[in-house]
Amino acid sequence: MSIFSYLLPKKQTSASVAKERLQIIVARERSSRGGPDYLPQLQEELLMVVRKYVPVGQDAVNVQVDRESGCDILELNITLPEDS
Amino acid sequence: MSIFSYLLPKKQTSASVAKERLQIIVARERSSRGGPDYLPQLQEELLMVVRKYVPVGQDAVNVQVDRESGCDILELNITLPEDS
Repeated sequence: MSIFSYLLPKKQTSASVAKERLQIIVARERSSRGGPDYLPQLQEELLMVVRKYVPVGQDAVNVQVDRESGCDILELNITLPEDS
Repeated sequence: MSIFSYLLPKKQTSASVAKERLQIIVARERSSRGGPDYLPQLQEELLMVVRKYVPVGQDAVNVQVDRESGCDILELNITLPEDS
């Protein structure tokens, strides 16, 4: 899968057109010296920050983690409620 | 500029190869009903979260905001210090 396939917009169905989406992508370029993997904790805290601004249900978040070509990529796709 | 040009990796110079980078992209799909623009505040808080995990200098953050095809896109490029 290409790295370019992460960003919005993806294919929309007619049902999803009215909804608002928020997408957060964190790409960490790994150096040869390694280092701790803080992305899982970072993901939780980023979501807490987003929740200060918009109501986000637990089911409304889709998380994907990928690794490719020397990058760790964390992708959060959040569907915002229509009455936010 | 294509929406696909945001993600890592960008062209690397020999000087930047040894450094580690962290990139955060927030894409907000705007609905027709508008709503408040919380991205600037969100950006500040996201940076505060990242600073809990890695030391980030004020000069090490490059911020870009773009709007295209119904999306607000916030891009944070962070260069991490080599001894982090």
